[in-house]
Amino acid sequence: MSIEPTSTGAGALLRLIRDGRASTRAELVELTGLARSTVAQRMDALISEHLVVPAGGSVSTGGRPPQTFAFNRAAGVVLCADLGATHSRIAVTDLAGEVLAEDAQDIAIAGGPDAVLGWLERRFEERLEQLGRIHDDVRGIGVGVPGPVEFATGTPVAPPIMPGWDGYRVGERLAGHFGAPCLVDNDVNIMALGEHYRAWRSFDHLLFVKVATGIGCGIISDGRIHRGAQGAAGDIGHIHVPGNEEICRCGNRGCLEAVAGGGAMAARLRAQGVDAANSRDVVRHVRDGSPAAMQLVRQAGRELGEVLAASVNFFNPGVIVVGGDIAHADEHLLAGVREVVYQRAVPLGTRSLRIARSTLDDRAGVIGAAVMVIEHVFAPDVVDRMVATG
Amino acid sequence: MSIEPTSTGAGALLRLIRDGRASTRAELVELTGLARSTVAQRMDALISEHLVVPAGGSVSTGGRPPQTFAFNRAAGVVLCADLGATHSRIAVTDLAGEVLAEDAQDIAIAGGPDAVLGWLERRFEERLEQLGRIHDDVRGIGVGVPGPVEFATGTPVAPPIMPGWDGYRVGERLAGHFGAPCLVDNDVNIMALGEHYRAWRSFDHLLFVKVATGIGCGIISDGRIHRGAQGAAGDIGHIHVPGNEEICRCGNRGCLEAVAGGGAMAARLRAQGVDAANSRDVVRHVRDGSPAAMQLVRQAGRELGEVLAASVNFFNPGVIVVGGDIAHADEHLLAGVREVVYQRAVPLGTRSLRIARSTLDDRAGVIGAAVMVIEHVFAPDVVDRMVATG
Repeated sequence: MSIEPTSTGAGALLRLIRDGRASTRAELVELTGLARSTVAQRMDALISEHLVVPAGGSVSTGGRPPQTFAFNRAAGVVLCADLGATHSRIAVTDLAGEVLAEDAQDIAIAGGPDAVLGWLERRFEERLEQLGRIHDDVRGIGVGVPGPVEFATGTPVAPPIMPGWDGYRVGERLAGHFGAPCLVDNDVNIMALGEHYRAWRSFDHLLFVKVATGIGCGIISDGRIHRGAQGAAGDIGHIHVPGNEEICRCGNRGCLEAVAGGGAMAARLRAQGVDAANSRDVVRHVRDGSPAAMQLVRQAGRELGEVLAASVNFFNPGVIVVGGDIAHADEHLLAGVREVVYQRAVPLGTRSLRIARSTLDDRAGVIGAAVMVIEHVFAPDVVDRMVATG
Repeated sequence: MSIEPTSTGAGALLRLIRDGRASTRAELVELTGLARSTVAQRMDALISEHLVVPAGGSVSTGGRPPQTFAFNRAAGVVLCADLGATHSRIAVTDLAGEVLAEDAQDIAIAGGPDAVLGWLERRFEERLEQLGRIHDDVRGIGVGVPGPVEFATGTPVAPPIMPGWDGYRVGERLAGHFGAPCLVDNDVNIMALGEHYRAWRSFDHLLFVKVATGIGCGIISDGRIHRGAQGAAGDIGHIHVPGNEEICRCGNRGCLEAVAGGGAMAARLRAQGVDAANSRDVVRHVRDGSPAAMQLVRQAGRELGEVLAASVNFFNPGVIVVGGDIAHADEHLLAGVREVVYQRAVPLGTRSLRIARSTLDDRAGVIGAAVMVIEHVFAPDVVDRMVATG
């Protein structure tokens, strides 16, 4: 019978220290019920991995003050990337998710994995060098991509706007390059995680809706990302909107994306003789006060509201956060969403429902990627294995 | 600093024994890393609560064989009820969820809490007496009701078809009567739990759809009931079905229930001159080979399929289980559901999706109620408190 990870391993002790619930060996003994010798041995392992450092004596109670310990957030760094269709953002954070360096740049995901990941590796190398860090300091890598991902293997699966990426082992490549675990997920999932962690932690159930060229949704259920059986959860862009029968690029009719996506809105403006190539142009026209653009975005908000009303009835979230390019179009999008959700969803589901704009905006993705990696790297069973083999 | 529940308390030891992962004190020491004296002390507490019993010596290895222990499933009983709109089922189970006695009877929930719960208390008393059990043997009570419930307090909240029950503290009343914890939940939630536990445990994400007079959905997310922020999750009966604008009793238009619920179908049959008062009559006509009824049920399946396709895109379940009266109408309902879901939902979400009829049928509710209570009563922190105060 092998010893399996339990909440009494080194990882559990590290969590108690990270969360500020214990800072001395005696407190760890009291909280866990472990033998003093066991706590001492596991703390030695954590210290030799530099995850825990002595933090000076605590307030004296007469005798020799007990040694206190603290989590060492500088014991390594996390590399984070939020790869978008045409624009990407990277960041290097410490082990508490604090951003140490970041950078954003236009790059086409359609260039394929070799071009994009080669670029990404070089940017990470440059940032590490600036920070005086080496590969050995990298504790983990987190990447968001604009398409469905098989999370267990870090592999995009039939992503519609990522030619060349289907089945490419993104996680394996980056993990091999930097010698650290790499987690890859859909971009809206990590955005949901970032928003939840930074702004809405008291809510157990959150939806993050990204409205840009396409429309997607990240789901936080009971504080964790809900990915679903195949990692396909949150693909709301192809839900049928009542009253709409526009043909979508997926072959079905009346999909949300075909009526309320940034691409669809730009096309509608062009049909009215307005110059608009993409979702950013739509936002620009709204900001310039174009009545046609404002009305279009508000109507898109209503269409999105129909789908979100159904999601509220089904899932009963505490908060819906709206982000992405189009969310920059002042309050027009949210006004349309609120109008329909509060009218169409069941009263119990909307009684305390919050509908808010993204607070992290463009940074939600990289911050969520850091959170994802840190939660994984410091999961009790992972730490247990680390100190057992380290 | 108080000692809080951890997975090293008496409850965690009980779980290891219940799951068959440990049967001796030495195995518990090895699995948990606890001191021998701590394990011995916690086992004594579990034995004095009759939750664990000596199970004879294990295979001798030369010396004195170590004492083995087993979970005592006969240490108490669970009272279970699935209260429907017009029909209720009760059961008494052992602590492993095995049914010891059960009973079903027509009773109108609209009679109000005093009439219905008075009846329920008498039925439970009779069953206990038959089994030679007393109130002290009752470890917990689980009740499903046909409406939204504030789970934390066991209180129906504005339930549309339960006049007189709004705000009534069902859990408190039954807990007081039998002197044991009582959990109350929406009926489809416990049905989902029963189906998942008995038939689909290898699937992390399951939807259970009940199609009867109304339409509701129980959601299993990551193996547990997803209730949402206000306990309102799964209320799919009032989602807007594309292409439908029928007025619903809720005041909105085109709700799923208004086009595909058993009540709506019976009304449509009546409009065609067919005698049908409720969903059971609809099923009877289907079984008698009425083309009008068969077509109606298949079309209802398609409408339900539209809503479930959206739920598949949003939630990506591994399996959808369809139950309730109308699911008895041979394969017509499921055929309609499958037709639309596989055509309308995103390919990744339907690739491995199972759509199946309920296996437990009318018993899903009481079995789910037993599972809910047992999981609660034997949650590690609850057991820790029980043996600390017992």
